[in-house]
Amino acid sequence: MRTEKDFLGERAIPGGAYYGVQTQRGMDNFRITGVPMSAEPQFVRAFGYVKKAAALANRDLGVLEPAIADAIVAGCDRLIAGEMRDQFLTDFIQGGAGTSTNMNANEVIANLALEHLGREKGQYQFVSPNDHVNFGQSTNDVYPTAFRLALILRLASYMDALTSLQQAFFAKGREFERVLKMGRTHLQDAVPMSLGQEFHGWGTTLGEEVQRIAEVRQLLHEINLGATAIGTMVTAAPGYPELATRYLSELTGQKFILAGDLVEATSDTGAYVLLSGVLKRTSSKLTKICNDLRLLASGPRCGFNEINLPQMQPGSSIMPGKVNPVIPEVVNQVGFLVIGLDLTVTLAASAGQLQLNVMEPVITYALFTSISTMENAVNSLRVNCVDGITANAERTRDMVLNSLGIVTVLKPRLGYKLCAEVAREGFNTGKSLHDIVVTERGLLTQAEWEKVFSFDNLIRPEFTN
Amino acid sequence: MRTEKDFLGERAIPGGAYYGVQTQRGMDNFRITGVPMSAEPQFVRAFGYVKKAAALANRDLGVLEPAIADAIVAGCDRLIAGEMRDQFLTDFIQGGAGTSTNMNANEVIANLALEHLGREKGQYQFVSPNDHVNFGQSTNDVYPTAFRLALILRLASYMDALTSLQQAFFAKGREFERVLKMGRTHLQDAVPMSLGQEFHGWGTTLGEEVQRIAEVRQLLHEINLGATAIGTMVTAAPGYPELATRYLSELTGQKFILAGDLVEATSDTGAYVLLSGVLKRTSSKLTKICNDLRLLASGPRCGFNEINLPQMQPGSSIMPGKVNPVIPEVVNQVGFLVIGLDLTVTLAASAGQLQLNVMEPVITYALFTSISTMENAVNSLRVNCVDGITANAERTRDMVLNSLGIVTVLKPRLGYKLCAEVAREGFNTGKSLHDIVVTERGLLTQAEWEKVFSFDNLIRPEFTN
Amino acid sequence: MRTEKDFLGERAIPGGAYYGVQTQRGMDNFRITGVPMSAEPQFVRAFGYVKKAAALANRDLGVLEPAIADAIVAGCDRLIAGEMRDQFLTDFIQGGAGTSTNMNANEVIANLALEHLGREKGQYQFVSPNDHVNFGQSTNDVYPTAFRLALILRLASYMDALTSLQQAFFAKGREFERVLKMGRTHLQDAVPMSLGQEFHGWGTTLGEEVQRIAEVRQLLHEINLGATAIGTMVTAAPGYPELATRYLSELTGQKFILAGDLVEATSDTGAYVLLSGVLKRTSSKLTKICNDLRLLASGPRCGFNEINLPQMQPGSSIMPGKVNPVIPEVVNQVGFLVIGLDLTVTLAASAGQLQLNVMEPVITYALFTSISTMENAVNSLRVNCVDGITANAERTRDMVLNSLGIVTVLKPRLGYKLCAEVAREGFNTGKSLHDIVVTERGLLTQAEWEKVFSFDNLIRPEFTN
Amino acid sequence: MRTEKDFLGERAIPGGAYYGVQTQRGMDNFRITGVPMSAEPQFVRAFGYVKKAAALANRDLGVLEPAIADAIVAGCDRLIAGEMRDQFLTDFIQGGAGTSTNMNANEVIANLALEHLGREKGQYQFVSPNDHVNFGQSTNDVYPTAFRLALILRLASYMDALTSLQQAFFAKGREFERVLKMGRTHLQDAVPMSLGQEFHGWGTTLGEEVQRIAEVRQLLHEINLGATAIGTMVTAAPGYPELATRYLSELTGQKFILAGDLVEATSDTGAYVLLSGVLKRTSSKLTKICNDLRLLASGPRCGFNEINLPQMQPGSSIMPGKVNPVIPEVVNQVGFLVIGLDLTVTLAASAGQLQLNVMEPVITYALFTSISTMENAVNSLRVNCVDGITANAERTRDMVLNSLGIVTVLKPRLGYKLCAEVAREGFNTGKSLHDIVVTERGLLTQAEWEKVFSFDNLIRPEFTN
Repeated sequence: MRTEKDFLGERAIPGGAYYGVQTQRGMDNFRITGVPMSAEPQFVRAFGYVKKAAALANRDLGVLEPAIADAIVAGCDRLIAGEMRDQFLTDFIQGGAGTSTNMNANEVIANLALEHLGREKGQYQFVSPNDHVNFGQSTNDVYPTAFRLALILRLASYMDALTSLQQAFFAKGREFERVLKMGRTHLQDAVPMSLGQEFHGWGTTLGEEVQRIAEVRQLLHEINLGATAIGTMVTAAPGYPELATRYLSELTGQKFILAGDLVEATSDTGAYVLLSGVLKRTSSKLTKICNDLRLLASGPRCGFNEINLPQMQPGSSIMPGKVNPVIPEVVNQVGFLVIGLDLTVTLAASAGQLQLNVMEPVITYALFTSISTMENAVNSLRVNCVDGITANAERTRDMVLNSLGIVTVLKPRLGYKLCAEVAREGFNTGKSLHDIVVTERGLLTQAEWEKVFSFDNLIRPEFTN
Repeated sequence: MRTEKDFLGERAIPGGAYYGVQTQRGMDNFRITGVPMSAEPQFVRAFGYVKKAAALANRDLGVLEPAIADAIVAGCDRLIAGEMRDQFLTDFIQGGAGTSTNMNANEVIANLALEHLGREKGQYQFVSPNDHVNFGQSTNDVYPTAFRLALILRLASYMDALTSLQQAFFAKGREFERVLKMGRTHLQDAVPMSLGQEFHGWGTTLGEEVQRIAEVRQLLHEINLGATAIGTMVTAAPGYPELATRYLSELTGQKFILAGDLVEATSDTGAYVLLSGVLKRTSSKLTKICNDLRLLASGPRCGFNEINLPQMQPGSSIMPGKVNPVIPEVVNQVGFLVIGLDLTVTLAASAGQLQLNVMEPVITYALFTSISTMENAVNSLRVNCVDGITANAERTRDMVLNSLGIVTVLKPRLGYKLCAEVAREGFNTGKSLHDIVVTERGLLTQAEWEKVFSFDNLIRPEFTN
Repeated sequence: MRTEKDFLGERAIPGGAYYGVQTQRGMDNFRITGVPMSAEPQFVRAFGYVKKAAALANRDLGVLEPAIADAIVAGCDRLIAGEMRDQFLTDFIQGGAGTSTNMNANEVIANLALEHLGREKGQYQFVSPNDHVNFGQSTNDVYPTAFRLALILRLASYMDALTSLQQAFFAKGREFERVLKMGRTHLQDAVPMSLGQEFHGWGTTLGEEVQRIAEVRQLLHEINLGATAIGTMVTAAPGYPELATRYLSELTGQKFILAGDLVEATSDTGAYVLLSGVLKRTSSKLTKICNDLRLLASGPRCGFNEINLPQMQPGSSIMPGKVNPVIPEVVNQVGFLVIGLDLTVTLAASAGQLQLNVMEPVITYALFTSISTMENAVNSLRVNCVDGITANAERTRDMVLNSLGIVTVLKPRLGYKLCAEVAREGFNTGKSLHDIVVTERGLLTQAEWEKVFSFDNLIRPEFTN
Repeated sequence: MRTEKDFLGERAIPGGAYYGVQTQRGMDNFRITGVPMSAEPQFVRAFGYVKKAAALANRDLGVLEPAIADAIVAGCDRLIAGEMRDQFLTDFIQGGAGTSTNMNANEVIANLALEHLGREKGQYQFVSPNDHVNFGQSTNDVYPTAFRLALILRLASYMDALTSLQQAFFAKGREFERVLKMGRTHLQDAVPMSLGQEFHGWGTTLGEEVQRIAEVRQLLHEINLGATAIGTMVTAAPGYPELATRYLSELTGQKFILAGDLVEATSDTGAYVLLSGVLKRTSSKLTKICNDLRLLASGPRCGFNEINLPQMQPGSSIMPGKVNPVIPEVVNQVGFLVIGLDLTVTLAASAGQLQLNVMEPVITYALFTSISTMENAVNSLRVNCVDGITANAERTRDMVLNSLGIVTVLKPRLGYKLCAEVAREGFNTGKSLHDIVVTERGLLTQAEWEKVFSFDNLIRPEFTN
């Protein structure tokens, strides 16, 4: 153990720890979720990038000694490389608007810099977490900037997951292109369609989500780096905000822009609300899709039974052979979680006061949890479900031909009145249209029937007025 | 027009208006929803009761002249009788924690009292809205007390509506007692049950809602009348809180109790949160029930088609004869509204500050809207849907007998291995169990089949180990 | 009274009514909110535009007789002109996915067309609501198209209201540019800023909302007109979707585009979710702003007392002269309502099934309610509050100078250690910095003090390292 | 590694694992949150109790061999003792309505039973997870019963935490009993009160939460054990439901009752909605309390500064000596999380279909997360904040005496008109009442002033009419 102190007094720290007294206090004070912020690796990396950009800018502006700046940069590079995650231990949800997390980064980087300079951990007179690593910075600009960068990095694989699911639906759309089925509105039989159209539609709707995320992600590129405590740039060297922003863009390959109104930007959490809103929207679409999948797969004998989902696990200890749609079910549940966490984000965003919104940490927790559970769910839905779906094409076709609504196809040929009469007979007797029209009444020959009730004519009947 | 003034200056009022300058200012200031608080008649009546109780208590305590008190009581009685609703014009949603509504009541009652005394409207030197009608009161105790009383009165017909719907489900439960159908879990065929059990279950679950509302309504009987501004009883005569509470109980026949901690009670909105929570729970149950009804009525040819809902209106301009489950659909939507308004209540309840929660007016709007739309929805569901539901008993029975899961009934007789073989053959060939077991393999005679697959044995098979 | 009938039978209609039997059934079946859809005038107008576009397209395609088309167009023009609102009586919340509202439009337009042709109401053999007005249409494409157009039209004045409020904040930002005040984070004294910066920031943040709405409004221009029942364009004449869309664009001056995947578009409600999400975000920002206004105006003696809000009405019947921040309070409550209704939209959007989302009517109710209450709130906040705000500049300056944090300004001159000593003395004794630094210790002359603690040096201290 | 198989085929299992193939499939299929259900130890213990009760009942009813039953009981006892948590690895959120978790319990207990009998893991011919451990059970009755028991057990320490916080507030209430302060409504100065009353009120309001939880916990005692798959008790021995319920009561000391309508009970999740609703309500109360604490502690120079919160950590890297209210801030954030998760519970509860609600697993995740983060937050609030709060009694008293509203105390002595004149002079000049009344105008002597403005007369002025 080693001892460190701050203006509240001394505190023992594990000797090998790269973090210091303020991280330790944060760990002591916030035992809430038990989930450290490093559960999201990009969040740690993002701090590396931001602190590196700050050090380079301060070095260029002559307010940070080059030797110290270089050592800090070396420390930051290790974070960027993915190291040191076990040193980032402060709880995702914390008071202080992220100060503990910012200090965690400052302390770890300072000790890495000291190591780089051949010094001992804790010799902060050479590289200080506050005076050097955090030079010209405040939690209030650094923490949100790192959060935004982390989100940008984190969203990449999530967007890929959505795109892959979209492609999987499109592939099935092509596969089922010629599978005739009944389209339904209000859960009531409506008019025929192709099963492929249904799957293609699910792909289309998810593709829109990727576009919306890309748009919102753009908003995350507006940052307040250099705003410091309240947006007045106090303690930042002249020119620092622009230069640090430029460095961050160069280091990450992301085109960041400095907010035009730094006072506003420092308390604003609006971009998170929109991002969460898109996650929520995607959840509501996945809810609908999974409900549809479960409904179309209902049965096997007493349901729709239009499609078969891959069998993932035995479904019942009582009923041998029963298999349940467990993957759509778990995706549904993730959707409920994400919609709930969106409310958390909204509540936190509404709770800003005056020059800061101190509730941002719970937003980090909510958004990273939503993104990662959604990505897991989306990937599982594709791999464990959609890719293996098969169609009961014969059954879906039979249901169409056995339905009454398709009598409308005969309207141009037989006239409205006769069609209505036929439909009523079907409804009253339970007979199929074919029985009535071909077998009993001989209104059509079998050949005519087959032509009129072909796939193409049912999907898109020749227009007649 | 007549002119009235307050400490902000003069304001013209319609000559015939019973309300006065402060009501007018409230109307000017709050043009928000356009829905006056008198849209809920019990809310106006409740103010009549509360003001009457206050006047009687103050008269008894010797702090209000009997003649004035009697005149005020006479005015209150007209409110209680349901008059004067067109004089209560302040918007449901208002700033000032309900001050405009309280002053609306004070002004209308003062002018009614003046009328009773043969005076002109506005001669407040004889009966003053503030000094007499509002004597020893504050908006902060009067408004929540009236709100609670109004809720208590309002809930009666809502609870009746729920109870009637419960009874309607129970009646259908009895009617469908012997209708055999497939029970489903995960939307997959499970084991047989009676359609009556399903309807009875819906009744049971709604009955629980009535109980929960009754319990929460009990909490609404704890009031802070006499707490005045912040719970310290400032300006109230000694003994007033208890006496006014007793009068209110006597007048309304409701057993009110005075809160033990008046400071707490004055800023507390917890009882509304619980009431809203029960409304939300009922919504979530009705959502489930209406989803079930729509699913069981899906078809007619390409869905479950177990039940028929009454036909309320043509369902489509395109598809002649299509009829949709419009009543469950509208109940579903009311459920979404109520769940949304529950969030509004929670947000408002969370926004209390220090000695008051000034957001109570939006809670009145949310709760009264929820209760009345729910009551409309529940009544409509009963009258326009449940009462007229019929069962397709033959079809539901056929589905059970055509299913594979019921092979378990034969296990004690044929053994597990043979049953599994039979089930597999059914799954692979699409044949019915009857075909395989009786017709093809002769494992059972038709008589044996009929005994084993009787309603009673399917619903509750003889236990064998 | 006159009698009309549909396939469910006959129904008496008021003789003078332009609506017909199906509207009447909708009114009978859905007594839910009591708010007719015509409470939003643009919704009625939008149906006029859509039906007109459809009639013109069908006429051009030769599937609707020119004389009938012209009569229909004449009827539509009256709706567009704002007439006939009293004929649109179906409840906002309805089952049937808007069929009652669509038929209401069809029936009113048919009867207007009959009138135009010199026929009697109800002589549908000449102009039929279904066969002519609704030709080649389904509720499932017409209703969402009209809804989208109505939203587009409706948002204009709402966006203007937000822009005006933004300008009002900017104006105050300029007015208060030189008002020195303490910036606060965590509600704790932080560093000085200008009151103008604070007001300007509120303007900036609301300006972003206008941009976001403009973006989402763009998404509303993608429509499914011509998709008919499920997106397969059944019953629509070839070329109709494109032509009707082009007509709608021309008539309204809005650039509509036809959705690329009509099956997807017909059940998709995603654009509403995003629009609602922006309304929710604006609410969360207004919540924050109004909380700030109320906090800065707290007092007058026992609070922050930095600004004065216009006095709108007496605040208390007990405490003479008390005035409350009633306008921000009511805006807060509207925010809670809008956030709640956003949940309603999300729930409804999640409840789509298969080829349609039948829950769209409650989305119309939620969105129009949110927009109109928000517009009312935003306008009220500007006119009744922001425009009249004054600053207590002396007090805010005194608080800054009386604070301890500003000792940091002296750090370059006196050194860290002495500054800390001075600050500690201030904290322990309650003395002001001026007392200690100038009067008692003579560390600065009064002239030096005034230079160092000037507005400019406090707002943006000269950078020293 | 050893190999196990189910009807979907073979799967390798770690050789030392007590769980088996179905647990493994559950782990494979559901990689969602990464949080195993054993993160809540009581959930594992609860399965031990339920499975033990089932085994004992089945033994007594003669349907389970005593030797096997005894071995199962021995296995269950190890779960109850807190062992085997590392064998419960299925994700909290899972499809299949908890089947994977139920099978996890069945498999672990079977292997423990086999160990008890001296057999090898996997020799299920002697003790089978399905045929013996799960005898007469279904996931659909066992999982919710175990969940309810786990909640009952889990709530104990949470209720203790709330009660301790209540006591801490009461203790501070007594400590601050004679601290005079200004009561505020609308954030505006209202009338005086004691700081002790404010703290006592917070205790009172939290005490109500304990009562509400106790009531809802009572509802959790109604279980559906023996209902099996859909509530028809299929596969359960006659008398089993009652006997198993009695055993469960005896083993746990909790008085369980068997639901009267087992069909209803099997798909009902209403009790969770209510429990979540109370957690939400407590969150909204804690939100209000923490907002108040942060507001009362605002300052030190530019805020209310009525109380001092314990200093937990440095608040700023920029502003030396700044300390922030980090504990109330983190409690606020937990409140936002819990309110969000309540929505998750509501959504899941609404999504039940027909004979089951398959979304129950996400409810377990949401509720256990809410309870444990709330308990952490409540304990932290007490220990790290409330217990160490001190009052700035001189300042709060000075603010009262410096306010204008207290002129009302002089009304009986000086008359309304003179009081109003004095108040106006104070408002216009900024002078204190004492200056005007005693020093300048000599309306009261200093002795009279002190008597009238004593603590007792300010808190509860002598009533005069």
